[in-house]
Amino acid sequence: MAVAVRPKPHEAPPGTPDPLPEPAREELRLETVMGALSDPLRLEIVRRLLLESEAFDHPCGWFGLGRPKSSLTHHFRALREAGVIRQRQYGLERRSHVRVDDLDARFPGLLDLVAAWTPPA
Amino acid sequence: MAVAVRPKPHEAPPGTPDPLPEPAREELRLETVMGALSDPLRLEIVRRLLLESEAFDHPCGWFGLGRPKSSLTHHFRALREAGVIRQRQYGLERRSHVRVDDLDARFPGLLDLVAAWTPPA
Repeated sequence: MAVAVRPKPHEAPPGTPDPLPEPAREELRLETVMGALSDPLRLEIVRRLLLESEAFDHPCGWFGLGRPKSSLTHHFRALREAGVIRQRQYGLERRSHVRVDDLDARFPGLLDLVAAWTPPA
Repeated sequence: MAVAVRPKPHEAPPGTPDPLPEPAREELRLETVMGALSDPLRLEIVRRLLLESEAFDHPCGWFGLGRPKSSLTHHFRALREAGVIRQRQYGLERRSHVRVDDLDARFPGLLDLVAAWTPPA
């Protein structure tokens, strides 16, 4: 299976808000990360953040997933609490990116599986 | 992180019972496999099958996990239905092994993460 090329995350520019609460790199647990990724919508969110993002952070409206905002908020929070994504609050909006360095350090190869994932037919 | 060496699975000897129902290799879904592995007990079962098994199939009593047999039966079934393990019925006993070839083909690197997993402190 071909492994998709993933762009490197951008550094947070000066003045970026602090991240919302999240587990530290050494606190990440494989079972928790897998639980957070055991859902097609969450895999789609993470895959799109990995493969399609150009800017640093993305508001959840960017995804165009056609789900109610309250439902998306729940899924983004689950991904953050498991340590898969980092979220920052910009005024009324939360923006997200994947914790590529932390996940590659702790679970090498995991994000390649997510990048290669395809939605159910 | 060092990746543990995993033994190759043995071929099924002649006269081996047919596997219990399971998804075909091409039917395996990452989200389903991750869901099955989002539990410390299941990760422990799969890790031990990967790292410690010598013989072809293992009855669940071999694991010495100190859980009721009914609970273990449930977890082994969940792993089989997700496509992580293959189970065969030997008389009254079900024995299991990891579907290494199928998982390596579909989700390269996933079993290395399981082999490197350590239980929560």
